[in-house]
Amino acid sequence: MSQTPPARLCEEDILRLAAELTAGAGPADGVAVGVGDDAAVLAVGGARLAVTTDMMVEGVHFDLAYASPRDVGWRVMAANLSDLAAMGATPRWGFLSLGLRPGPTPALVEGLFDGMLELARTHGLRLVGGDTVRAPALTLNLCLIGLCESGPPTLRSTARAGQAVCVSGPLGASAAGLAWLSAGRDPADALAAPAVEAHLRPRPRLALGRALAASGRLGAMMDLSDGLASDLARLCAASGVGARLEAARLPLAGGAAELATLVGADAVDWALRGGEDFELLFTCQQTDVAELARLAAQADPGAAVVKVGALTKGRGVWLLGLDGSRTEVGLQGFDHFRGDGQ
Amino acid sequence: MSQTPPARLCEEDILRLAAELTAGAGPADGVAVGVGDDAAVLAVGGARLAVTTDMMVEGVHFDLAYASPRDVGWRVMAANLSDLAAMGATPRWGFLSLGLRPGPTPALVEGLFDGMLELARTHGLRLVGGDTVRAPALTLNLCLIGLCESGPPTLRSTARAGQAVCVSGPLGASAAGLAWLSAGRDPADALAAPAVEAHLRPRPRLALGRALAASGRLGAMMDLSDGLASDLARLCAASGVGARLEAARLPLAGGAAELATLVGADAVDWALRGGEDFELLFTCQQTDVAELARLAAQADPGAAVVKVGALTKGRGVWLLGLDGSRTEVGLQGFDHFRGDGQ
Repeated sequence: MSQTPPARLCEEDILRLAAELTAGAGPADGVAVGVGDDAAVLAVGGARLAVTTDMMVEGVHFDLAYASPRDVGWRVMAANLSDLAAMGATPRWGFLSLGLRPGPTPALVEGLFDGMLELARTHGLRLVGGDTVRAPALTLNLCLIGLCESGPPTLRSTARAGQAVCVSGPLGASAAGLAWLSAGRDPADALAAPAVEAHLRPRPRLALGRALAASGRLGAMMDLSDGLASDLARLCAASGVGARLEAARLPLAGGAAELATLVGADAVDWALRGGEDFELLFTCQQTDVAELARLAAQADPGAAVVKVGALTKGRGVWLLGLDGSRTEVGLQGFDHFRGDGQ
Repeated sequence: MSQTPPARLCEEDILRLAAELTAGAGPADGVAVGVGDDAAVLAVGGARLAVTTDMMVEGVHFDLAYASPRDVGWRVMAANLSDLAAMGATPRWGFLSLGLRPGPTPALVEGLFDGMLELARTHGLRLVGGDTVRAPALTLNLCLIGLCESGPPTLRSTARAGQAVCVSGPLGASAAGLAWLSAGRDPADALAAPAVEAHLRPRPRLALGRALAASGRLGAMMDLSDGLASDLARLCAASGVGARLEAARLPLAGGAAELATLVGADAVDWALRGGEDFELLFTCQQTDVAELARLAAQADPGAAVVKVGALTKGRGVWLLGLDGSRTEVGLQGFDHFRGDGQ
């Protein structure tokens, strides 16, 4: 590509570059929300459409050694639905691009579709189009379209300093399940089974997202796909604020501490950086936390809203440790393209 | 996946399976056109949206040895835009999923975006969202949304026996260019340059698609992405008709015959099976061919509508050879998953 050794882009570089190169879309183009949020929002004939796309690749996002085709189909649908949840949207239509290695079996293709469709039907989404191609690794891309009917779409960029930072449920379960499976341990182990299930069959918070959007009391909202530390850092960057997380408040997933000991990992690290929990991350006035927690439990009995920190006027995401230490967390150490990301 | 050696699916099996598994979407769900056409059509707030998705993978759909990142970006955009052209739609918004090998360079990422955006801007389309992931091979997936404003969307399933089969321009240029490049020949060779350009920078027929859709005189329409033989076979299957193509009428791309001799290939085979010409394939009353050719030339000076055959009450796509022979062409021998497809 160039004569001198070329620079290598990290993930944030690519996102920034993509945003720059595609800049310029505004409301005049029917674009209410463009690049940089969980989903774009388009104004079409009086309706607001939330549109999101997410790709998953064998060997990067999943391993068929421990995930069945059905699990893989479910997970890619869950990741995409979770983006619609973060916008408070109602899922409607999906488009699948499927990259398959030569000679795919009926069991593989049917399993993928079964997993996708099982979760899609639960949330009223229909697959109505797609593409199939040959690829060197199993690759699934979904593009989902939802309707924003529960109030204005909820963004990353509308948080204010002083607001509470909340998550909609326990953190680190997916990472714990992944660590357990990667270590070759028994997926049916009683202690690990809920974490394994959380990893292979995550449950996106659609009803909760709509209820929170309809409350009119949110600062900002997004879904937790890469982990609390980096996702909160993105929310903060979009809103021009900083954040302080309190380790003592992090709602560690049940069994995570024991599982971490068994596989030689750190449960707090899973909660901060594990990713794929697909809980919702939102900010609100400190005085609204209790009311929103009540609303959330009503909308989704599986949800358990917990305040984990607060937004600050500073910059960066800082963790207040159990020992009183103060550490910057956030985006450092997280990069899909360096091989340490999920 | 199973205990006994599993069956292996061919491409048509997968498409059939996908259609079966996703069946059930109807107008009540806002789906005017579902799986099986060039794009789905959704009814939203009084508007009709055409939505399409296409994936391209390094080593399968392109080779960075002879295609620049800019070419690759252009081609994936062209392939997707061509699907909107086939529906008579006006492109509006695009969503990109980008799978990159570790350590991508700025030249690669900028080149891809430059190629995509150059063609997108020409047709009024904006990229407004996407995803970037790590992948074992460069992978681009676009999902494009257009508006059907030029009359009802044009389908594959509405052709009738007796109608003329027309194409919007010369065939085989892209295959000729690919064969030339694959043979390691000089892309700047005067004879080959137009074919190389047709392969690397195909020009989707958006204005033409809208003009044809607005004419109200079409039987059916689709774009030529896999080659006349297999694409016409799909149109015929969707419409429940057969077709007879006449070899003498096939509009071979300029220079294709000479290039075929030079690389030891067959120009008629390129025209029938080469794929990626991205011309439009449509049917109409025999008496409307001349008028539609006039309309087409007006809408797109680069278009040259040619009648290549007729639809029959029988089944299958048959080629009437120059020697009077009659050969069944169609889908046989074409399968992305057996490695002989593009």
